[in-house]
Amino acid sequence: MRMSAGVEWAVHCCVVLSQAEHPVPSSRLASLHGVSKTYLAKHLQALARAGIARPTEGRDGGYVLMRPPEQISVLDVVQAIDGPEPAFRCTEIRQQGELAAPPEQCRKICGVAKVMADAERAWRTSLSATSIADLAGSFDTSGMRRVLRS
Amino acid sequence: MRMSAGVEWAVHCCVVLSQAEHPVPSSRLASLHGVSKTYLAKHLQALARAGIARPTEGRDGGYVLMRPPEQISVLDVVQAIDGPEPAFRCTEIRQQGELAAPPEQCRKICGVAKVMADAERAWRTSLSATSIADLAGSFDTSGMRRVLRS
Ligand code: FES
Ligand code: FES
Repeated sequence: MRMSAGVEWAVHCCVVLSQAEHPVPSSRLASLHGVSKTYLAKHLQALARAGIARPTEGRDGGYVLMRPPEQISVLDVVQAIDGPEPAFRCTEIRQQGELAAPPEQCRKICGVAKVMADAERAWRTSLSATSIADLAGSFDTSGMRRVLRS
Repeated sequence: MRMSAGVEWAVHCCVVLSQAEHPVPSSRLASLHGVSKTYLAKHLQALARAGIARPTEGRDGGYVLMRPPEQISVLDVVQAIDGPEPAFRCTEIRQQGELAAPPEQCRKICGVAKVMADAERAWRTSLSATSIADLAGSFDTSGMRRVLRS
């Protein structure tokens, strides 16, 4: 199982935005973590589509969070970047081949798919329990704010 | 996040093997679920490497489970096919760019990486709670055994 590489940057980026007093231009967001602007553009668009961060207009334009950091969970950011689709996708293999079960026996979700869905629910529940505000508490936010002001 | 497509087949295959009275040739394992033999060969090798199923020698050779189905968890099969690597991989982005934290502040795992690792642990714990024997209980195993004998 593999999560898209942009997730690491996107979560760190939201932590930074939670500490910013002013909108942060995307070029600055790139240099703050040493990633390229083009890499970042795609992920910023995904955060905007998901209602997490948006660009402001004008001379001092830049990105701001669209909700208080207490109301943005790590799961929100992960799904914005990585998509909301389940990791396991059932192709109804039970209805194929010699062992094919008749459709009337397949009205309920397959036992295998259910175990996978339950595990993914546990994963999502865990990720949704931590907010960007909680995460910020694990960083040197005064240092972060100092750099943001410079 | 995406799990490798072979997982669905591999788990179903282990359920079938748990019901078989004799070794099941790989060509039969393919036709039982209507998948191609080449597709399956790779995944059978992965199951063998993980100590889950192995080929027997001889004229009636075929695959058998290497442990009682009670002792094979869904997690064992998932990791055999999909690899044991974590889905989230931290690239130490916190040590890069303008916001780079000094190495001495990075001895502990990053807060972001910790949240991801905790969530993946919840996912693994959930998958390890169900065995192939448990799963078999959710299938029509008498029908399965009938087909296997035919
Ligand atoms: S048929 Fe898809 S998981 Fe069983
Ligand atoms: S530095 Fe990798 S997750 Fe924070």
